Amino acid sequence: MNYGIVLFPSKSFQDLANGYRRRYDSHYANIAPHITVKERFSLEDKGELSKLVEALRELARQTPPISIDVYKVDTFYPQSTTIFYKIRENAELSALNMKLYEPPFPTDRAHSIFIPHVTIAQKLPQSEHADIVGQLKMTDISHQETIDRVQLLYQLDNESWTVYETFLLQGQA
Amino acid sequence: MNYGIVLFPSKSFQDLANGYRRRYDSHYANIAPHITVKERFSLEDKGELSKLVEALRELARQTPPISIDVYKVDTFYPQSTTIFYKIRENAELSALNMKLYEPPFPTDRAHSIFIPHVTIAQKLPQSEHADIVGQLKMTDISHQETIDRVQLLYQLDNESWTVYETFLLQGQA
Repeated sequence: MNYGIVLFPSKSFQDLANGYRRRYDSHYANIAPHITVKERFSLEDKGELSKLVEALRELARQTPPISIDVYKVDTFYPQSTTIFYKIRENAELSALNMKLYEPPFPTDRAHSIFIPHVTIAQKLPQSEHADIVGQLKMTDISHQETIDRVQLLYQLDNESWTVYETFLLQGQA
Repeated sequence: MNYGIVLFPSKSFQDLANGYRRRYDSHYANIAPHITVKERFSLEDKGELSKLVEALRELARQTPPISIDVYKVDTFYPQSTTIFYKIRENAELSALNMKLYEPPFPTDRAHSIFIPHVTIAQKLPQSEHADIVGQLKMTDISHQETIDRVQLLYQLDNESWTVYETFLLQGQA
């Protein structure tokens, strides 16, 4: 079974992102706008899951709420035609990501560098990508908020994601 | 902002329900298969929300995990052309529903009777409804499981639902 760990930003920011995702993101219907802090991983049995849930609970107890600062539109091109809202790198978010790739969490990384972001377009044909990224880079984006919870998701056979459990970030800043 | 409270059944049962929902349920992409225990309600501000979250936390602490027994396909026709997996009525589920309509939760009910179910088809034209309900009623369905968490959801502008917080059912049976 596939799992992932994400932060969901506030509704207003999710609604903004969905305005683009509806048109440009083939995963639009599979999940709400989110910041991935641990990419898809697989667990075989309930025992592994409960060990991981326990670790996540402890990690959330120690981790303070995380401030995010969305400051521009960027693209992963030429690696992919994914366009995203870029979140300014910050020590708290990086630390959370790092801990989620240390045991008892699975340690394999699909990407060697963690670039915190909210995807707004993906799997675009190259020519469309160039057009859209040009337009979007001209829009001003500046959004700050503090996120006080992480969400452990699981994936259904239709590729959509559902929340398994919420963990409140309760550490002292 | 709109909220709702649901139970999500296990992945295997969700996958089964999605096999039908993909074809017959216009809300397929908005939410994973679920059992609604409190229908959509609206809260105006963060203060109301935190009062409700606190009450839900307390209610979950007292409520034991809930056994569900899915035993047949049924329809709300002629009220609507919604087809659903019917869950055998049980005292725990009814008690949870009842408490979620007592203060501090909003007390308005859209439906006077609580019929626990998982929707698999809705908004069908009447002729299609008759066909499909006939077919589905002939399939044998028997599924039991125990659900140990409730999910507070909020609704985005695109009508999809996202989990705000999970509450583990921790009462003693």
